[in-house]
Amino acid sequence: MKKLMNDRESFLTDMIDGLKLRDEAIDIIEETVVVRRDKKQSGVALVSGGGSGHEPAHAGYVAEGMLDAAVCGEVFTSPTPDKVLAAIKAADNGDGVLLIIKNYSGDVMNFEMAQEMAQAEGHQVSSVVVRDDVAIDNEEQRRGVAGTVIVHKYAGYLSDQNLPLDEIVEKVEGMMESLYSIGMAIAPCLVPTTGEYGFDLDEDEMEIGVGIHGEKGIYREKSETVDKIVDRMLEELFKHTDSSRLIVMVNGMGGTPESELSIATKYVMENLASRNIAVSKLLVGDYMTALDMQGFSLTVLDEDQDVLDSLEAKTRSKYFK
Amino acid sequence: MKKLMNDRESFLTDMIDGLKLRDEAIDIIEETVVVRRDKKQSGVALVSGGGSGHEPAHAGYVAEGMLDAAVCGEVFTSPTPDKVLAAIKAADNGDGVLLIIKNYSGDVMNFEMAQEMAQAEGHQVSSVVVRDDVAIDNEEQRRGVAGTVIVHKYAGYLSDQNLPLDEIVEKVEGMMESLYSIGMAIAPCLVPTTGEYGFDLDEDEMEIGVGIHGEKGIYREKSETVDKIVDRMLEELFKHTDSSRLIVMVNGMGGTPESELSIATKYVMENLASRNIAVSKLLVGDYMTALDMQGFSLTVLDEDQDVLDSLEAKTRSKYFK
Repeated sequence: MKKLMNDRESFLTDMIDGLKLRDEAIDIIEETVVVRRDKKQSGVALVSGGGSGHEPAHAGYVAEGMLDAAVCGEVFTSPTPDKVLAAIKAADNGDGVLLIIKNYSGDVMNFEMAQEMAQAEGHQVSSVVVRDDVAIDNEEQRRGVAGTVIVHKYAGYLSDQNLPLDEIVEKVEGMMESLYSIGMAIAPCLVPTTGEYGFDLDEDEMEIGVGIHGEKGIYREKSETVDKIVDRMLEELFKHTDSSRLIVMVNGMGGTPESELSIATKYVMENLASRNIAVSKLLVGDYMTALDMQGFSLTVLDEDQDVLDSLEAKTRSKYFK
Repeated sequence: MKKLMNDRESFLTDMIDGLKLRDEAIDIIEETVVVRRDKKQSGVALVSGGGSGHEPAHAGYVAEGMLDAAVCGEVFTSPTPDKVLAAIKAADNGDGVLLIIKNYSGDVMNFEMAQEMAQAEGHQVSSVVVRDDVAIDNEEQRRGVAGTVIVHKYAGYLSDQNLPLDEIVEKVEGMMESLYSIGMAIAPCLVPTTGEYGFDLDEDEMEIGVGIHGEKGIYREKSETVDKIVDRMLEELFKHTDSSRLIVMVNGMGGTPESELSIATKYVMENLASRNIAVSKLLVGDYMTALDMQGFSLTVLDEDQDVLDSLEAKTRSKYFK
């Protein structure tokens, strides 16, 4: 299998060992839980995580200004409740804990189970579930994708403002009401733990609406030029928003070169300009990936001064840029 | 062709348009020359560049603390002397200009021609040629690869210390004496302007010593586990260095996911520990890529306090982390 790895069984722990070597400001507990070495002494603690394979999400965002802990499941597999519980206990400084969960049934189940266990032990724990992927019609079933990283940043900022847990939950829930994403791929990811491709795609095909684990999208068709791809993705997003001032994220899926992200960005901004939409903040990079999938996602969010301030606020994460 | 692009002819200009939208601190002149919007008013100006396809190199390093201008050629094609000359003239503030050239015949020829033209117009211009790729035996013919980014950072720091041009050249030349890199790939890049893969590689093959344009390496063999790949790459590097304190860069080739860079890093550090080598600075990320090539390179450099200080110094580039 064409992967830079040693074996399937140690993929996750080898990755975490490497992460630790790359970032002196993190510690590893319980083998797969990444925490800040200098624990935040006050303010709501933020815990996220999920299956691995989305790097730098989520462990790369464990840093001053963003998360306090990230629970790393096996590749594309939810972490178990005991690990989430360990993260909650490690991160809680007495001001309460917010769980930021992507909307996948395993994640929701295991994080909420850990939440209940932690509450039973006396921890104050709330949770928010991110559902930004408009490729799914049913709102309740929408997957959490790249918009989750904006939630990390916003919640991190609110925590640093020393807001109490219930107020952070309220603000984050409010912000998520206008948070929409859609993804696309021109080539699937190769999953190291199974040796299988995330999905099949012919040499001349693309898929619009694909999920970050290779879940089925809305359209599978012949590949088009990126201007047309962008137009179609934005058309999907504008079924959900009518804002004229947006925050925009162009997110690489992991195997997409920087050059192509820049090209996609050009056409995103051209399309938005033709719609007379002002972009008050543009984020471009690999924020929430799907291993080595080639493709990108677009995320939009209504302009909001509080959110803008949060995106400009400092973080020590090297991955939020 | 599976590329997020519109057409071959506009690949470069579309990318540059996108870059400009992503970074408000840059300007574009002469269509393909990226300069700092707020021109540095004193200190030696640094100009680099070369063929495109190595993003974020070089335009991503045009920022306070690093480069003053980058000349972007077509994909894998040297920029022409007139563009380099334009960059020199735009960047020079009267304190002289240093050209940082990767050792490819076209780049060396065109940058040196521009250097002569600029000197004839009264500019003080020097140049250094980076030759860090040990896959080539003949020292004079060694290609310039990922180590070039360390040169950008070091020279940027020296310029910010207000050192004169000749002193910067001397220090950079000295630093480059212990700068060695080697690359490898498990999958070639697809070149957008030709529609061809950079080289052929069977599904179960890897190539050690490959260049950042897909140039032939030293070994082409069956793929191995990453610990063995790392051992062999370091073995090549240690034919050239016997230092016990190193600065180390693990550089992604563009299509390599973050997870695999972390795993490679783990085994690099294990190998170095077994050799009793202290790593005084570890850089991991996509610094000098080859479009969507899957693979990585390793760069080593003797520990030096001045270089270490430069690597810790601030830059506004989002890509040097």
